[in-house]
Amino acid sequence: MTPKKEIWSDVERIRAGAPLVHNITNYVVMNSSANALLALGASPVMAHAVQEVEEMVAIASALVINIGTLSGHWIQAMFVAARAAKRRGIPIVLDPVGAGATRFRTDTCIALLNEAPATIIRGNASEIRALALAEGATKGVDSRHSAEDAIGAAQLLAKTFGSVVSISGAIDIIVGGKRTISIANGHPLMPRVTGLGCTASALTGAFAAVNPAAAKAAAHAMAVMGIAGELAAERAAGPGSLQVYFLDALYSLSYEDLSARLRWEES
Amino acid sequence: MTPKKEIWSDVERIRAGAPLVHNITNYVVMNSSANALLALGASPVMAHAVQEVEEMVAIASALVINIGTLSGHWIQAMFVAARAAKRRGIPIVLDPVGAGATRFRTDTCIALLNEAPATIIRGNASEIRALALAEGATKGVDSRHSAEDAIGAAQLLAKTFGSVVSISGAIDIIVGGKRTISIANGHPLMPRVTGLGCTASALTGAFAAVNPAAAKAAAHAMAVMGIAGELAAERAAGPGSLQVYFLDALYSLSYEDLSARLRWEES
Amino acid sequence: MTPKKEIWSDVERIRAGAPLVHNITNYVVMNSSANALLALGASPVMAHAVQEVEEMVAIASALVINIGTLSGHWIQAMFVAARAAKRRGIPIVLDPVGAGATRFRTDTCIALLNEAPATIIRGNASEIRALALAEGATKGVDSRHSAEDAIGAAQLLAKTFGSVVSISGAIDIIVGGKRTISIANGHPLMPRVTGLGCTASALTGAFAAVNPAAAKAAAHAMAVMGIAGELAAERAAGPGSLQVYFLDALYSLSYEDLSARLRWEES
Repeated sequence: MTPKKEIWSDVERIRAGAPLVHNITNYVVMNSSANALLALGASPVMAHAVQEVEEMVAIASALVINIGTLSGHWIQAMFVAARAAKRRGIPIVLDPVGAGATRFRTDTCIALLNEAPATIIRGNASEIRALALAEGATKGVDSRHSAEDAIGAAQLLAKTFGSVVSISGAIDIIVGGKRTISIANGHPLMPRVTGLGCTASALTGAFAAVNPAAAKAAAHAMAVMGIAGELAAERAAGPGSLQVYFLDALYSLSYEDLSARLRWEES
Repeated sequence: MTPKKEIWSDVERIRAGAPLVHNITNYVVMNSSANALLALGASPVMAHAVQEVEEMVAIASALVINIGTLSGHWIQAMFVAARAAKRRGIPIVLDPVGAGATRFRTDTCIALLNEAPATIIRGNASEIRALALAEGATKGVDSRHSAEDAIGAAQLLAKTFGSVVSISGAIDIIVGGKRTISIANGHPLMPRVTGLGCTASALTGAFAAVNPAAAKAAAHAMAVMGIAGELAAERAAGPGSLQVYFLDALYSLSYEDLSARLRWEES
Repeated sequence: MTPKKEIWSDVERIRAGAPLVHNITNYVVMNSSANALLALGASPVMAHAVQEVEEMVAIASALVINIGTLSGHWIQAMFVAARAAKRRGIPIVLDPVGAGATRFRTDTCIALLNEAPATIIRGNASEIRALALAEGATKGVDSRHSAEDAIGAAQLLAKTFGSVVSISGAIDIIVGGKRTISIANGHPLMPRVTGLGCTASALTGAFAAVNPAAAKAAAHAMAVMGIAGELAAERAAGPGSLQVYFLDALYSLSYEDLSARLRWEES
């Protein structure tokens, strides 16, 4: 199958099966992530109490952990949930929001990865580099990174934890095993909406729920994100309307949209 | 008065009096619930600290408890607030989000209902059945329920706790005392927006604040929800714009809209 | 420079420099505050864990503390962050949401102000009066206040804590040192959107990050808020679309918009 047919097959499986995606995510994006999952066709659930995360993982098809507004008792639940997901064999997506900005965030991610390695780590270049630095990579000199600048860091994380690493940027790059996929979809207005990176992680969970090939699932999610963003940007007058139309576009995405717009390269 | 005149009378009382509705609700829907209450004409307040919930209940006209993202210290505050509401005699609306999905959720709802029975329990068919099962009802066999399938469960809860039970679905059904009301308003796109069920509970609080007849208050809220959803769906291109236009429709709802669209049956 | 040139200079500095604004804010408005900061051109971060707030303050250009959904462990983080901001000399904006509604809120604000006085206190008339009452002001008799009614209260707070006080209302009034600025921009639909007051506080943080003259920064933020609200209201059909278009207007605000609409008085 061509990439566009494979992506579309995943979209159809999500729409038909409405896989339950369990999110332990940050306060800022809970609403927008849940709406994006629903618009795509998945079923979101948000639950973070240590008393229930294990039961919730038991009925979920994927677990998404996002550390955007971390605090102590949430970390405990993240560990319990991640261990339960590993035991059940469902995919885990980790979004290391703000890794590198504080040691608390970096250390929590590394501890989670050591305890129950994520199937897919999805972050921006700065976050991916911060995690790689914590694992012994040599520090680069530039402070504003493109996804391309973080490929080395992603390869180190992929090797250390056996994870696929999905780096978002103007061009998204997915590093997994021997494969590197780059996706040039998206729109410059997207970073002006809060939490679209977190939405990408939530959607990655939905694709991973229906596609066991993790690198492909990660890439399919970024392609659908980017294309929905392009469609939304054509109607939008700014970031407020972009967010609204982005959900509309996810909901009504067609194979024709996908086919006409996909910019996918593989090496 | 006819149902449409009674509903409109409540809407006018909410718009004129802006009753304060105290919400202890989940993180996902705090923003959308507050916006829906404001659009309708009520005054929302969100407060969950055990140090202040009693004082907040003391100035509120209704209390809405929603367990969507439960954790330990929030439960404590829910109990304090519910007891204070009972003492003051203001209505309590309980939304048992996800009851049945985990024991933690089911048990918390039952404990709350035993301590300070809700005036109105508002959930979907699956949640209402889960609560009834926990109270000894016989388990049904189907896993996807319509509101009609949960009428027996609602009657058991109504009898056990003296609550009105409002079941949302394609057709909403309100069970209270000897009365059963069904409302056939709404639109299939509504479940694709996160938290519209939680919004229904928040609006139920606003109607209960101005109307002491709890079954009517619950039904009026569902009718207004459904009609605002229909109006929004006529303009919407998907779930993103539906949510935006839903708030606009609540704000500008007229007696003519209500009168032309209401689909209400009583038995 | 005229006020409009000074405001525009701040807007350009925010757009060029994307100052990092650290928010410890309430659950209801985290998403909308972050989106408003991004639309204006600033960089938002939300972080509240006591383990990381000090490090986050160390890389931020302003700290915004908002007590809208307060609880115990958040207060501890607010104190740590406020002390760190004082040591670094970055501006602190305090939004005393609901001060006066419960003692818990009033007392927390006064304790924070005593520990690390805010550069700018931004609230509505009722909140500003509640804080002044707690500091010994004589109670007024009216319960619905305009910003003008709170000028005396603001002057007392300004004198006690050395803070600029920014009172939002149909006319916004900024009291600071010898200067009083009033701004008559805005639209009556704005209070029907939840959290626009909190958004005003977040934007005040962005302006304070680029302008050390705190009274001017506070006034510039309110002017831009009000004008963006007016632009949005011209397109909006209700509070749902107002919120969307408000973000679009912040993003695309031009000097011409500002210049044509600014209603600024100084005494």
